[in-house]
This record gives sequence, C-alpha cells and structure tokens, in this order.
Amino acid sequence: MQDNVKPIEWRRDGSLLLLDQRYLPHELVYRTCRTPDEVADSIRSMVVRGAPAIGVTAAFGLVLAALGAGDASALERSVRSAAELLGSTRPTAVNLAWAIRRMLQALDRHLHQGNLDAPAIQERLQAEAEEIFKEDLEANRRIGELGSHLLASHVTVLTHCNAGALATSGFGTALGVVRAAVGHGKQVAVYAGETRPFLQGSRLTAWELMQDGIDVTLITDGMAAHFFQLGTFDAVIVGADRIAANGDTANKIGTYGLAVLANAHSVPFYVAAPVTTIDASCPDGEAIPIEERSAGEVTETHGWDAAGVLHRVRMAPPGVAVRHPAFDVTPARLISAIITDRGVLRAPYDTAIRELVRKS
Amino acid sequence: MQDNVKPIEWRRDGSLLLLDQRYLPHELVYRTCRTPDEVADSIRSMVVRGAPAIGVTAAFGLVLAALGAGDASALERSVRSAAELLGSTRPTAVNLAWAIRRMLQALDRHLHQGNLDAPAIQERLQAEAEEIFKEDLEANRRIGELGSHLLASHVTVLTHCNAGALATSGFGTALGVVRAAVGHGKQVAVYAGETRPFLQGSRLTAWELMQDGIDVTLITDGMAAHFFQLGTFDAVIVGADRIAANGDTANKIGTYGLAVLANAHSVPFYVAAPVTTIDASCPDGEAIPIEERSAGEVTETHGWDAAGVLHRVRMAPPGVAVRHPAFDVTPARLISAIITDRGVLRAPYDTAIRELVRKS
Repeated sequence: MQDNVKPIEWRRDGSLLLLDQRYLPHELVYRTCRTPDEVADSIRSMVVRGAPAIGVTAAFGLVLAALGAGDASALERSVRSAAELLGSTRPTAVNLAWAIRRMLQALDRHLHQGNLDAPAIQERLQAEAEEIFKEDLEANRRIGELGSHLLASHVTVLTHCNAGALATSGFGTALGVVRAAVGHGKQVAVYAGETRPFLQGSRLTAWELMQDGIDVTLITDGMAAHFFQLGTFDAVIVGADRIAANGDTANKIGTYGLAVLANAHSVPFYVAAPVTTIDASCPDGEAIPIEERSAGEVTETHGWDAAGVLHRVRMAPPGVAVRHPAFDVTPARLISAIITDRGVLRAPYDTAIRELVRKS
Repeated sequence: MQDNVKPIEWRRDGSLLLLDQRYLPHELVYRTCRTPDEVADSIRSMVVRGAPAIGVTAAFGLVLAALGAGDASALERSVRSAAELLGSTRPTAVNLAWAIRRMLQALDRHLHQGNLDAPAIQERLQAEAEEIFKEDLEANRRIGELGSHLLASHVTVLTHCNAGALATSGFGTALGVVRAAVGHGKQVAVYAGETRPFLQGSRLTAWELMQDGIDVTLITDGMAAHFFQLGTFDAVIVGADRIAANGDTANKIGTYGLAVLANAHSVPFYVAAPVTTIDASCPDGEAIPIEERSAGEVTETHGWDAAGVLHRVRMAPPGVAVRHPAFDVTPARLISAIITDRGVLRAPYDTAIRELVRKS
C-alpha cells in the first residue's frame, strides 16, 4: 500500500491520527484523537477496525489518558479508567484486551519503581505503545513470509473482510501472506468477498490491493460457493479476531460458511493471525463472546452518488426485525493451518497452541 | 399480501401494469407497458423478476405485440418478432421460454384455423395469457398446500431471494409454502437472507411477509452459516429458475452455498417451483446457462435517505474488477425434495421428473 496511507499514526505531540475507514475508498479522511473517549468512540464506530489495529489503537488511547495527568496517582487513576472504557468497546477481538493488559502491566512496573514522576511514566507508556505498534508490523511481515510458502507459484485465493494493512499496524495478516507471495514473484489473484453488512471486502480489501497493483476481483458473499464449485480457488486465507486454546477461531461473520465450503470442495482454509490473537485462557469457540451490532448497519448502507456526494441510504423495510452477529466461529477441524508470526500451526491445535504459549 | 398489491395486472384496454420492484419497499410505483419493447425492458432491468412472473409477463408482452396488428399476417410477424425479443431478455429462468412457446403454439393453432381475423386471434391470445396467469396462481396454491405438510407445527425456515407473491402471479412458491402452513395454524418464523447484490430478500421478501403479519427476521447472506451452526433452522425453502431433467436446480446466486450448509448441518433443503420450471430437455446443471449481470449492480446500490429521497450510491472503488453470476446451480443430491404443483418429488429425481413429464 502507498507509504503515505497509514491506518494508525501516533504523533509525539500527543495526538493519534486514525484513517477513518468509513470513508474509504472514496475519501482519505483522518480523525485526530486527543482523548481516550475519542479513541473509544473511534473503535466502537469502526473508524478503525481489525483485531490487531484496535489493540494498537487502544494502547495509544491509554497513552492519551496518561498524558493528561499531573502526578503519578492521577495518571494511574486516569489510565485505569480509560482501560475500562476502551476494554468495553468491542468484545470479540482479544487483541484489544491483550494490548490493554500489556499497557497496565507496564504501568504497574513503572509505578512500583517508585521514583518515577508523571512525565517519566508518560514517556515509558508511550514507548510501550510504540513498541506494540512496531511488534505488530514485524509480526505481520513474519506471518506473510511464513504463509507465502504455503502458496504455489500461480494461485487464486479467496479472502473475506479485510485482514490487510488497514486492519493492523501495516502490511496485514491474510493480505500480508498475499503481499509476501507476490514479493517472492508468485502470481496471486485475489477474490475479495464484499463482506456485508459493513463491506470491508469491497471498501477496504479491494481498494488496498488495487493500491498495490495486486490482481483483485470483487464478489458478493453469496457468490463464493459458485466459484468453489467451478474450482476457481486454490486456497482461502482469512484473519482472526480470537483463537481459542483448541484452535476454534472467531472471525468476521461469514467466515464459518466459507470454511464449510472450502472443506466440501477440498480447498485449504488458512487463518493468518499474530500470536496476540490467541486466547489460551479461552477453551473453545463456545466461550468466545460474539458481538451483536446494530440493525441499522444491515438495513442501511452508505456510499457516494455520481457527483461524489455521500449519502446514508435505507434499503430494508422500516421496522423489520434484524439479527446482526458481527462474528462467527470456525471450528478447528475446518482449519488447514494457522499461520502465526511464530510458526505455522497444524492440527492438533490444542497441542500446538500449548507448546507455543509454553515457549513465550 | 394486501389484495391491492398486485405484481402483474393485465387490463383489457391493452395495458400491462407492473409493480416496479426496484422501488420497493419504499414506494409503490407501477409501470404501464403498452409495447413489447417496454415489457422487454421491464424484464431486463428487473422491474419484474422471479421465474414464474417473467413468464407471465412475457405472455402479456406477446398479447401487446398482437394488439397492434391490423391483419393476421402482420399479427404473426409482430408476435414472432416480439417472441424473439422477449426470449432474449434473460437466459436462466426457463419459465420465460416456456410461456413464449405456449403462446406461439396458441398463435399457430389460431392461424391454422384459417378463418379467424386479427381481432379474433388477439382475443384468443389474450385469453391464453390470462389462462397462463391464472394457472400460475393456482399452481402456487397447490405448491403451498403440498409443501405445508412438510413443515412441523413450530418451525423456523430460511429462505433466499424472493420466491413470493412478487415473483409469481401471486401467493408465491417458497413463500406460498410458508403462507399455506401459516393458514393451517402452524407457527412459522422466517429468516430472509438479504440476497446481495439486488437485495430481493431485504427489499421484497421481508416486506411481503411483514404485509401479511408473518414473523420475519432479516440477515445478511454471510450470517446464514452462523445460524445453521446454532441450530436455528428446521428447513430451507427456496424457489427455482430452472430444474434440469436430473433435478439439478438453478436459482438465485447464493442458493448453492445454503444447500451445502443445510447438508453439513442435516437440515432439509426444499425447492418449491411449478412444473413449468422443469426443463426436461436440459440434462443437468452444467447445461443451464448462467446469466452474468452488470458490475454496477455489485459496486452500487440504491436506497432512501432519512428524508425519503432516493439515491443511487457507489460503495466499491472505481475500476475494480467484478464478477456477477446472477444464478448458481444446486446439484440434485443436496435437495431433500422438489415441491411442485403436481406432487412432491423425491430422489432419484431423474425418474421422478421423467414420470411427471410422461403424465403431462
């Protein structure tokens, strides 16, 4: 992706710039956050989305909470309160809880050193968040490298939602695998499922890949089965919002159906995610909380008319009952491999994940 | 559905009123067609859609062609030319070709009687089209009655696209089964998949069922798998655009994926369609032509803003490559039963269909 398009940018003047993904692909609008409230609202309203990206964003949200405080005890109160606020924004992606926990551990460490004043703690929390950002970027590059070896030299890959640069610090998880494979000279064609209701596939993945000159074809979610039947796909690669200890994986709604289809057509189904997406304390998919979002995201959508004017429009009848689970769970048995930054995991996933966690 | 909402209405002053389904559910707009060209445009642009409905509409289109002619030979030329035009509008639904063939057979019959003048032939073609309309309505009622016995007394049914009153002369095929079951006092809850890209599930099915006070919940297409996993559905019922001699069934894109999911979760998958949807000359699904529609229907949509103003909006990046197969094929082995107006067919479908055709 063009280097000037950054999904998350921290400025040391105490501001967090978020590329407002609701305006893509039509407009490049940045939202500047200076308070944890603004960050929480940005996560909730999907200005920023994608499990790794919201983790990184929340970490900077805690830095903003720290920056306002005049002394160490006010700083602690402010950060803990912001941690609660930010932690409650979205329930499914575990990277959010992980990043907040790591920031709170850093806070505890620096508070217990005893002799640090507020500016010194602020500086160290800022460095910690910057480190989380950097580590995520590096994790994506390693995921890409490891995953690229799973793809043959000429392949067509189906992806769902956006597990790209826009969902992370940069480079992407599922799309990181595609980018790395293309970087190795492989010919990769991508089919992007549009991913209703929020259209991350259409608005974000298609746009992001076009920016990089990678071959991408947009389809609606219901078309995937037809192309499986035609033998179009060599692999499916998706991201993840939370991976349980047994390998069951929550990801954007629609993923589970693609896993069933991949299985029925003997196409490998890969999950690409950093180790921070693994929740070893969560035994299996049934224990993963599934966020139910608003009916309005299903009954309405937004887009631009021929003159480039933005409209929010309603398609469904007023008053219709709607369900809107934002994620679903793919059971481990349907997953061919989980591509992490610390190795490609294969079944039995409970053993592979236990081993990985033991080594960390 | 309210008796004043009629999808197709023939007036004996020589006009065909079509409920313009592109404006539903927000506006009840009727389009009046007085020429075969207007009818062809209405079918092509999906003013009217649904396999049985476009068959009935084309039949009236041929009546309009006949009405303009001053003598029998001009009438024949005009009807044959309109038959070619109307037959080329949409390739997948076989009811279109079936209705046109039946009208041309009637034309031949009346021409060969020799002593009929143009007004007499016009009158008889009009009666033939009215008969096709009436038979379709009756077929739907019989499908509903036969299908209703397949549902238990408390069921949740998933449907896709719109196989309702709006897709037929009235009552509906898949939704006819639901209506008949409700009429027998059964408690039926319907989940309507929104059916991207054209949103027939959201714009039409949800609206049509709400009009009748039938319990309906709207979901996006990618959510179906999640609800299969939760055990929400007792049955899937869909319509059909063409049923091959071996039972392979073309229906709205997205249907095949639901059939795979139903199979994987041991949920019965029913196809409801009149015998006119069976194409005994088509050996199997591979021989069914699949219409590829425009990219614009995927990259753009239309809806109404808060002030009720209609907008056509673009969501996807300009220039993105798009595929838009409008139908897919569900292999016979995934179909639990085909509910026709002349009986419920079960596997092996080749035998059942041969038997049915032999008796007609």
